[in-house]
Amino acid sequence: MGKDALAEHLGVKLLEVKPGYAKATINITKELLNGAGVTHGGTIFSLADVVFAAASNSHGPLALALDVSIHYLKTTREGATLTATATEDNLTRKTGLYRMEIKDENDKLIAIAEGLVYRIDK
Amino acid sequence: MGKDALAEHLGVKLLEVKPGYAKATINITKELLNGAGVTHGGTIFSLADVVFAAASNSHGPLALALDVSIHYLKTTREGATLTATATEDNLTRKTGLYRMEIKDENDKLIAIAEGLVYRIDK
Amino acid sequence: MGKDALAEHLGVKLLEVKPGYAKATINITKELLNGAGVTHGGTIFSLADVVFAAASNSHGPLALALDVSIHYLKTTREGATLTATATEDNLTRKTGLYRMEIKDENDKLIAIAEGLVYRIDK
Amino acid sequence: MGKDALAEHLGVKLLEVKPGYAKATINITKELLNGAGVTHGGTIFSLADVVFAAASNSHGPLALALDVSIHYLKTTREGATLTATATEDNLTRKTGLYRMEIKDENDKLIAIAEGLVYRIDK
Repeated sequence: MGKDALAEHLGVKLLEVKPGYAKATINITKELLNGAGVTHGGTIFSLADVVFAAASNSHGPLALALDVSIHYLKTTREGATLTATATEDNLTRKTGLYRMEIKDENDKLIAIAEGLVYRIDK
Repeated sequence: MGKDALAEHLGVKLLEVKPGYAKATINITKELLNGAGVTHGGTIFSLADVVFAAASNSHGPLALALDVSIHYLKTTREGATLTATATEDNLTRKTGLYRMEIKDENDKLIAIAEGLVYRIDK
Repeated sequence: MGKDALAEHLGVKLLEVKPGYAKATINITKELLNGAGVTHGGTIFSLADVVFAAASNSHGPLALALDVSIHYLKTTREGATLTATATEDNLTRKTGLYRMEIKDENDKLIAIAEGLVYRIDK
Repeated sequence: MGKDALAEHLGVKLLEVKPGYAKATINITKELLNGAGVTHGGTIFSLADVVFAAASNSHGPLALALDVSIHYLKTTREGATLTATATEDNLTRKTGLYRMEIKDENDKLIAIAEGLVYRIDK
């Protein structure tokens, strides 16, 4: 995998990757807000997607995302620091299922997501 | 609603908003790719989220996203032009359900998403 | 495919199957309610699942469900007649994506579901 | 809440309910299979739905399901014993989010589901 350009464009920093696991963080700047002045759903999803991709590609075979569902639990604002982790719920030869938790700097849950990948034997 | 800062940061252009409907477009530039060199899941989701927010807030009461699920159908690359529409599947006094379709410049489906909002009587 | 035993046990009648499409109906009897006296979420899901399975297996290769998400829009009661349709949102060599709509006897939407299958080349 | 009629019709036994938690079990009989001869998706979902309803209604205010997404991980057959638990991911005055895990008699994960309720102040 090359560098994740969107992650860089948004300021997502990947902190840790190990088999079936990844952790990343982002500081919420003005550019990452929505029209209501709170952190954009697309920002939170993108942070989750970065750890989802890192964790699901940690085993070798290329992992392509099939679907992701995200539940938003709490709004955050400019200045917040969000951290996301991806953990592996299930792994088969062909698929992987990951749970992403996004928390704020006070360790409060901001969102939960679940994502499925298809794994391609190279 | 004020301006959508993330939409601007990514280059999403909102083309049309009417009650229960919105349409937006984005040109896929280098900054919007992932580590595999294809359009980032977070880019596609953010485009869908912009029309979701616009359509769900088109009726007056403030709409807060509860959850979104997205299915990815086809990868795209730098230079692609994606267009997203949000249409209203259901509207009650308290909730709204929206379907988002993301297509490429050849009108091929790239992703489908479904999002639920909670509506706040002001 | 053999007969669908759960469909029979619940009283689901499959009305129509064609490539990428299926339709079924159920009469809501006392056994199909939940503890609040309204139609059980499991009843509505099972009805949706029957048309999902029929539509996704209409092409030949065995289709195995990977995931389904369902949104409930309206409660119904004993005596209601529900009808579900499955239509194909996308079909690739390896996957199929289906949208299920469940309506009551007045053609009001009761629930919407989206389901993904993995297709096995026999 | 009265008795759960569908749970009884399918043979789901509720084993435990405490605030934000519920556990139930089912023996997979012939009536609970699908056309491919394996446990029906509707059976697994219904089992998950029973613990979801019990856990989300454990606090007092009536909880109405808004949506559920389920991922299927492993097929099971006649004679299997499945157990489902619901745990609370989040609780606000208006909503509750629950994770359901369904396992077989060997403690292998069969399915994972995530469900959201709207809570009605009586």
